[in-house]
Amino acid sequence: MNNPHEIDRLARLLLDGHLSVEDFTGRVCETSIADVGEAQLDLDRSRRCGFPEVVFAQGKSVEAIEKIFAALHSHGVDVFATRMSPEQAAVLEAKFPDGKYNPVGRTFRIPLPDSRPTTGKVAIITAGTSDLPVAEEARETAIWTGADVTTIQDVGVAGPHRLKANLPLIEAADAIVVVAGMEGALPSVVGGHVACPVIAVPTSVGYGASFGGLAALLGMLNSCASNVTVVNIDAGFKGGYIAGLIAKNVAAGRSE
Amino acid sequence: MNNPHEIDRLARLLLDGHLSVEDFTGRVCETSIADVGEAQLDLDRSRRCGFPEVVFAQGKSVEAIEKIFAALHSHGVDVFATRMSPEQAAVLEAKFPDGKYNPVGRTFRIPLPDSRPTTGKVAIITAGTSDLPVAEEARETAIWTGADVTTIQDVGVAGPHRLKANLPLIEAADAIVVVAGMEGALPSVVGGHVACPVIAVPTSVGYGASFGGLAALLGMLNSCASNVTVVNIDAGFKGGYIAGLIAKNVAAGRSE
Amino acid sequence: MNNPHEIDRLARLLLDGHLSVEDFTGRVCETSIADVGEAQLDLDRSRRCGFPEVVFAQGKSVEAIEKIFAALHSHGVDVFATRMSPEQAAVLEAKFPDGKYNPVGRTFRIPLPDSRPTTGKVAIITAGTSDLPVAEEARETAIWTGADVTTIQDVGVAGPHRLKANLPLIEAADAIVVVAGMEGALPSVVGGHVACPVIAVPTSVGYGASFGGLAALLGMLNSCASNVTVVNIDAGFKGGYIAGLIAKNVAAGRSE
Amino acid sequence: MNNPHEIDRLARLLLDGHLSVEDFTGRVCETSIADVGEAQLDLDRSRRCGFPEVVFAQGKSVEAIEKIFAALHSHGVDVFATRMSPEQAAVLEAKFPDGKYNPVGRTFRIPLPDSRPTTGKVAIITAGTSDLPVAEEARETAIWTGADVTTIQDVGVAGPHRLKANLPLIEAADAIVVVAGMEGALPSVVGGHVACPVIAVPTSVGYGASFGGLAALLGMLNSCASNVTVVNIDAGFKGGYIAGLIAKNVAAGRSE
Amino acid sequence: MNNPHEIDRLARLLLDGHLSVEDFTGRVCETSIADVGEAQLDLDRSRRCGFPEVVFAQGKSVEAIEKIFAALHSHGVDVFATRMSPEQAAVLEAKFPDGKYNPVGRTFRIPLPDSRPTTGKVAIITAGTSDLPVAEEARETAIWTGADVTTIQDVGVAGPHRLKANLPLIEAADAIVVVAGMEGALPSVVGGHVACPVIAVPTSVGYGASFGGLAALLGMLNSCASNVTVVNIDAGFKGGYIAGLIAKNVAAGRSE
Amino acid sequence: MNNPHEIDRLARLLLDGHLSVEDFTGRVCETSIADVGEAQLDLDRSRRCGFPEVVFAQGKSVEAIEKIFAALHSHGVDVFATRMSPEQAAVLEAKFPDGKYNPVGRTFRIPLPDSRPTTGKVAIITAGTSDLPVAEEARETAIWTGADVTTIQDVGVAGPHRLKANLPLIEAADAIVVVAGMEGALPSVVGGHVACPVIAVPTSVGYGASFGGLAALLGMLNSCASNVTVVNIDAGFKGGYIAGLIAKNVAAGRSE
Amino acid sequence: MNNPHEIDRLARLLLDGHLSVEDFTGRVCETSIADVGEAQLDLDRSRRCGFPEVVFAQGKSVEAIEKIFAALHSHGVDVFATRMSPEQAAVLEAKFPDGKYNPVGRTFRIPLPDSRPTTGKVAIITAGTSDLPVAEEARETAIWTGADVTTIQDVGVAGPHRLKANLPLIEAADAIVVVAGMEGALPSVVGGHVACPVIAVPTSVGYGASFGGLAALLGMLNSCASNVTVVNIDAGFKGGYIAGLIAKNVAAGRSE
Amino acid sequence: MNNPHEIDRLARLLLDGHLSVEDFTGRVCETSIADVGEAQLDLDRSRRCGFPEVVFAQGKSVEAIEKIFAALHSHGVDVFATRMSPEQAAVLEAKFPDGKYNPVGRTFRIPLPDSRPTTGKVAIITAGTSDLPVAEEARETAIWTGADVTTIQDVGVAGPHRLKANLPLIEAADAIVVVAGMEGALPSVVGGHVACPVIAVPTSVGYGASFGGLAALLGMLNSCASNVTVVNIDAGFKGGYIAGLIAKNVAAGRSE
Repeated sequence: MNNPHEIDRLARLLLDGHLSVEDFTGRVCETSIADVGEAQLDLDRSRRCGFPEVVFAQGKSVEAIEKIFAALHSHGVDVFATRMSPEQAAVLEAKFPDGKYNPVGRTFRIPLPDSRPTTGKVAIITAGTSDLPVAEEARETAIWTGADVTTIQDVGVAGPHRLKANLPLIEAADAIVVVAGMEGALPSVVGGHVACPVIAVPTSVGYGASFGGLAALLGMLNSCASNVTVVNIDAGFKGGYIAGLIAKNVAAGRSE
Repeated sequence: MNNPHEIDRLARLLLDGHLSVEDFTGRVCETSIADVGEAQLDLDRSRRCGFPEVVFAQGKSVEAIEKIFAALHSHGVDVFATRMSPEQAAVLEAKFPDGKYNPVGRTFRIPLPDSRPTTGKVAIITAGTSDLPVAEEARETAIWTGADVTTIQDVGVAGPHRLKANLPLIEAADAIVVVAGMEGALPSVVGGHVACPVIAVPTSVGYGASFGGLAALLGMLNSCASNVTVVNIDAGFKGGYIAGLIAKNVAAGRSE
Repeated sequence: MNNPHEIDRLARLLLDGHLSVEDFTGRVCETSIADVGEAQLDLDRSRRCGFPEVVFAQGKSVEAIEKIFAALHSHGVDVFATRMSPEQAAVLEAKFPDGKYNPVGRTFRIPLPDSRPTTGKVAIITAGTSDLPVAEEARETAIWTGADVTTIQDVGVAGPHRLKANLPLIEAADAIVVVAGMEGALPSVVGGHVACPVIAVPTSVGYGASFGGLAALLGMLNSCASNVTVVNIDAGFKGGYIAGLIAKNVAAGRSE
Repeated sequence: MNNPHEIDRLARLLLDGHLSVEDFTGRVCETSIADVGEAQLDLDRSRRCGFPEVVFAQGKSVEAIEKIFAALHSHGVDVFATRMSPEQAAVLEAKFPDGKYNPVGRTFRIPLPDSRPTTGKVAIITAGTSDLPVAEEARETAIWTGADVTTIQDVGVAGPHRLKANLPLIEAADAIVVVAGMEGALPSVVGGHVACPVIAVPTSVGYGASFGGLAALLGMLNSCASNVTVVNIDAGFKGGYIAGLIAKNVAAGRSE
Repeated sequence: MNNPHEIDRLARLLLDGHLSVEDFTGRVCETSIADVGEAQLDLDRSRRCGFPEVVFAQGKSVEAIEKIFAALHSHGVDVFATRMSPEQAAVLEAKFPDGKYNPVGRTFRIPLPDSRPTTGKVAIITAGTSDLPVAEEARETAIWTGADVTTIQDVGVAGPHRLKANLPLIEAADAIVVVAGMEGALPSVVGGHVACPVIAVPTSVGYGASFGGLAALLGMLNSCASNVTVVNIDAGFKGGYIAGLIAKNVAAGRSE
Repeated sequence: MNNPHEIDRLARLLLDGHLSVEDFTGRVCETSIADVGEAQLDLDRSRRCGFPEVVFAQGKSVEAIEKIFAALHSHGVDVFATRMSPEQAAVLEAKFPDGKYNPVGRTFRIPLPDSRPTTGKVAIITAGTSDLPVAEEARETAIWTGADVTTIQDVGVAGPHRLKANLPLIEAADAIVVVAGMEGALPSVVGGHVACPVIAVPTSVGYGASFGGLAALLGMLNSCASNVTVVNIDAGFKGGYIAGLIAKNVAAGRSE
Repeated sequence: MNNPHEIDRLARLLLDGHLSVEDFTGRVCETSIADVGEAQLDLDRSRRCGFPEVVFAQGKSVEAIEKIFAALHSHGVDVFATRMSPEQAAVLEAKFPDGKYNPVGRTFRIPLPDSRPTTGKVAIITAGTSDLPVAEEARETAIWTGADVTTIQDVGVAGPHRLKANLPLIEAADAIVVVAGMEGALPSVVGGHVACPVIAVPTSVGYGASFGGLAALLGMLNSCASNVTVVNIDAGFKGGYIAGLIAKNVAAGRSE
Repeated sequence: MNNPHEIDRLARLLLDGHLSVEDFTGRVCETSIADVGEAQLDLDRSRRCGFPEVVFAQGKSVEAIEKIFAALHSHGVDVFATRMSPEQAAVLEAKFPDGKYNPVGRTFRIPLPDSRPTTGKVAIITAGTSDLPVAEEARETAIWTGADVTTIQDVGVAGPHRLKANLPLIEAADAIVVVAGMEGALPSVVGGHVACPVIAVPTSVGYGASFGGLAALLGMLNSCASNVTVVNIDAGFKGGYIAGLIAKNVAAGRSE
């Protein structure tokens, strides 16, 4: 998105002493920012990080989201938003008829018209039915990253044969997201069966001494399985993003 | 241990108005306390609670412990102490030649001469080798309660077939103590396989976000297995005591 | 519930090299799972753990609960659910006319038609009137386990003679559930009077530095009474379940 | 200790405009401060607060303590220090031969030569033998306040008849200090028996989820007994001070 | 309230062997309990503790409170309840026309017809206007204990001369309640000026790192003023109760 | 605001022995307090602290705020209030037509008629759009202190070139307020670029392990940039106040 | 490592009814466990998880470690141990002369004789010099996984140009480990520059409100960079393991 | 320190297409980093931030510190190090004879030969004698920044007239550092008297519920005084640095 002519011009100003080094760098950077008033969009994100910027809808006005969506859309970005309320979605679905809202995962996406091939395999596993909203956020995010996603529900630790029955699906994945609340033991158990990273997503499901997901978070951080890594409580987005990123990079190797 | 003649005498004083109700009760109670200066021993404990008083050695002077041991011993109690340092033990082994010190579990016991039959089955399971000191405290305590104790070591969650291989031993128990640090997931997994209570003992084994056993404690309190109940961090004594108590009561039924 | 013919067939496939060991085990396991879409029911639970699976209603849709109830009911299970809202109950009472909702304890049960004899004695003690909802959850659960349940209310520590007056009832129990908020001292006091396990259930009753039940939880974990073991804050279900399990096992011995 | 002539002189300077109001007040204040270099002693404390300043020895050099002692002593103060190490005490006992060190409570006192009558009754109760150092600090402090002190040891909650037996001593007190670690339930039980304030002193005795006395502290703050008030963990000094202050004020009324 | 004839009769049964010591004590105790179904009232509280039982209204049904009020009232108790909602109060004011509800402090009282003389001086000081509800609960409680109460509002630490201006009122008190949120520094400042106990009541006033009153609670527990003792967050009742108890006992001495 | 005649009169009373030193000081102080019933206004604040007292509206009745505003206004104070709800503002805007409410920052101000020159430069930087309410509170406060305020939005750490582009604006400031939630890394990054103090304001923006702003608060306290200092979570007021105070003092030097 | 003949024999016993399904599975599992007394080695780990079991040396006796090393070594495993003290290492270096101890990272490795090609690129970045021990543990672990490892030291957030200068090295990695204490902001800053996963390892470096690494841990969990995932405090091993696993899987794709 | 010729050369390479923009910026940055192996020194810090880089000695080897000192010294930097142990200092004093170690504050400084005029006034106030080490670190740091520093010791809140007596010194400061442990109330009290920023430094002085300085930290964050801002626990360095920075900037204005 950077205009090479503009950069040449700036470099000449630098050489001629009309621009300090700091100013030169600053100006170059400006060309990859879209200022929409309430937010400064990072249009260079996709080049640097592999995926474009995602919109965190919670706490933003619908008007601001609409402006951000329009700016991203006009730059050819596969627009994706998380933590969107049904009220916000109702307005935005009217404005962007191609957009789809997932009411369980609370995500919104305006897919690009051209279909891209999926890039790698992500498995998403939930410990219990109540973890579904976080798992859905992870699933939508992983799909947005281009991954081929399988979801396996309700395989809690206390029913050990349920995990067993789903092992073939799990072992085929390039990255696994395990979503669990309460004591958060499932990632350790899954981790002991597979040869790919397990992204553990603690959820705030539980009560009392779960302390809003703290018990699950600490359990996962202390996992005895070496391949378990952890993201924030209820961070379905991050779980899906990192799993999708790993799957994409592994698959990229395969397709070279 | 209460002297019935003394109680009759007190009751007469009460009736005659020489004793208030409060004083009457107080005096009756006094007859079951042995005052050794530093401590007031509860000689009535065995009748009320099934087992006699146990000595918590940490922070007590060797002289005090010796006096307490002598007082308990003279009342025919199966003396048992926990959290005893090697230094304390060295002195006490000289004074009580029948006593045995377990340097791993840090317990000391002066067994009664007459052998009693064991009363029920307790299984003690550890997640890792580092949990051994707490498991040994639990084992010594359960043996002191009269239980038939089996110990199964190093069956961490990340190696699922290790637990499987030991299931027959585990399923035969009347009560199970599971000792685990780090994420503390083992009790949930064990709990899903058995039909007796699982006493979960979190340990301070781990580092960083284990926060001295807090992670394991919270994990166990939030266990998705319904038969898991929890005691304090590193409380091998309590785990062994409660498992021994359950095993004794279950076995008592069987032998009726 | 496992079909022996199917297992024979699978074993033959294994022997003939058509199935790997992993696949063989997986398939065997599948036969004891009922997949109802939102959940995978563990039909083998009763054989392994002594009691069938219980439904945690909170956060589940009424439709999902109805499917789970129907599946369990059709397999001859004594259906029991906890944390059910009055709104959920209203719908389910219409669908399952034999079901009974306890609006204080928020439990729902569809009892089996054949009456079974009660199996052991459970006492449930509350510290204060505000602890009643948790105590009711414990009571309904213990009844569901088949126990003969006695409830003793409002015997807080600051009124010492109230506990005294109820001692005979308490001493007769095979297992005791003590439900208390605020400082959670009651289990220690009860524990000092009895020779059976005390399952302490901290409640979130209190304010300020009770920190949602944390004070009671920590107090109970640090109880100076050796027979006190602890479950999660507000976990009336777990308290009732473990007490019922102990009572059942003790009584099973007696009836052998 | 304020010199009235100096105050008159200052007031005149104020009136004549040579001193601002702020300066006037500042100068008046200075006359009641003794600057010993490392510390500024509050010689007016006794008039304002009922008792003179106490020295917190921990972290101070012996030289600094010696200077402070000498300054206080020369102003006729009944010198009292807490948290003094045996090493500090060894030096100071040589310098102040009238001083007495209590090695359990770690206090040091240089009593005034004239004996004062004791002023009120303070009872100090400990839950266990390990709480003794904190209780001794409280006892020495209460004696320094002039109180008539009774100590009752090792009356933990799990042995209910031990408290009963000591009730007459307890009921006679003007203020009670209860020193307890672990779950800290004793103050509630004591509080339910008496008609005077109970100053609860949590101790760091315990392990695991006692979290250095936090469990006891929270338990005491949530006490269901209305007359229980709390000081810092291990704050034997504060417990003894406040109990002594109450006893002094109650006794002052009696002697009017 | 205990019937001496009944106690004589019980003592005779004890002597004749018709009653065990335990049963005897239990029966005696029963005579001082009023069972109203939901609660067991402690009618002996006033004799033991100086004041009768107080009703904690939060979480109780209006029907239960009404029964408790009626039972207490019929035994001649000065009925007092805390944490009562306006909805509860509306019903109870209709049932007990002599009762008075304080909507700020959320207390309800049915004063006894005969006026008693006030017994001692309590000062209640608030740091800020937002602390008023807690201070009002303390004030109503202290009045119920019979104290002569003075309230001084809004004397926060950052305005030092405001405290100065009110010192004469403060110095005259037998006990002082200081109610403060945020950093909770006011009790230390007040404590440095007076010779009576300061009961510090932390409030949940504040935001962010006040963590619901934790900052104020910790600050008060660590107060450098020796005469500061602490109760639970927002525990206006306890602050007023203990201050009233001290004032009563000090005044009782004066009037002897 | 102190009346010198009154002070002279008081000093004479002091000299003549009609006033104690304490009373003298108390009376002098009283002259700078405005008592409006619910609150005691500190009219001397501006002289001592550089700015007059600010009203914290949350939890105060509109009537009380109105009285306080009127009292301050009549003493010529530039009235400023924070944490005001839209409901409170609606009433007060009617009463004080010169007042202006900022609905995002929830502040209310009644500016003085005479325009003062701005005094120094304050830059306010936000990490994300959701931090805007806290940033607006800071901005309004800094304007009230008389500062020349620049706001730079949405320059989160993950988009490094966005900060770069705004460096010239940032480097010109006398003090910088950085408002950030989640991990709170922005102040460190800003701090590494500038030679003035950075006031870091953590916000409660985030979820899960942000624990209501705790993560941001701890991050900022541990900042590796030496010029970063921290205020309470969501304390936009304090951030703006201190930045404004620094800017005023720096500018005062410049204008001397 | 499973012996197929033994499995056939077991399957026949199963088919003939001499073995239950449970027993069959248990026996099969046993063949992949090496019992060395103190530990049960998981010889099947490499097949399931991609890498063999690693030895956590802390808290194990040198004798136990020696036995474990010998058992693993005899099965052709690339032996690797972490958290080994210099004292342990001194003994083991004598026993296993091919082994190498890293005294900074506290790791010990007995490399296999045959050199394998490195498989993918891992970059390890430290925020400060004090983070080196954790970074060295990560580096040794990543090397053991077969990765090509680059280490970049001391690029803290407050010196922004230091990261800039190392960007080309960082962008080339398949996975990045960022090791940081204090506020833990570096992973977010790195994450904003790259298109691969960033494994954030918080360290306990810092003091005060770093609370042993909690501040860094929370900061990293709340990172605004989507590609940042987190492991336990000081868990250099886990950081290196997961980065190595990702690099291996990505490289495996490339080499297909 | 940047060489302008080198930058010109780089800019030409950029213009001619031999360098990418990223590479260009990277190379420019490199010229201001001194790589000493263990650390990458930020030689540009002084230009950007007003003061050069400071060495955190804790956890660094003496050899590394010596190299860093030599590198900084050779660039004309006023070398300053904090958290240095006496053992480290003994070696470094031998190597750098101009260096001075402060054993209380644990700082080390090699002052530049040319004396610079002091730039502004900093007052450092301690609550108690035990806070001295932190205060000394602050004092040495502020002196290093060029400030004119006054220290006022032992003016705790409970002795209100001690602060009064020192007010003139305090009011003259451009910035004030208040160092306090325990409840941390002193900054609020100081803040209410002055018109400059108060940098509050909580210390870990205290015991029990001070939780290593947490109580003081929270108290200071919740200060009711608007001009109080906070740094990390025991962060004397940061307190002195920020106060020195403010004083320098205020004085710079004055001298313009």
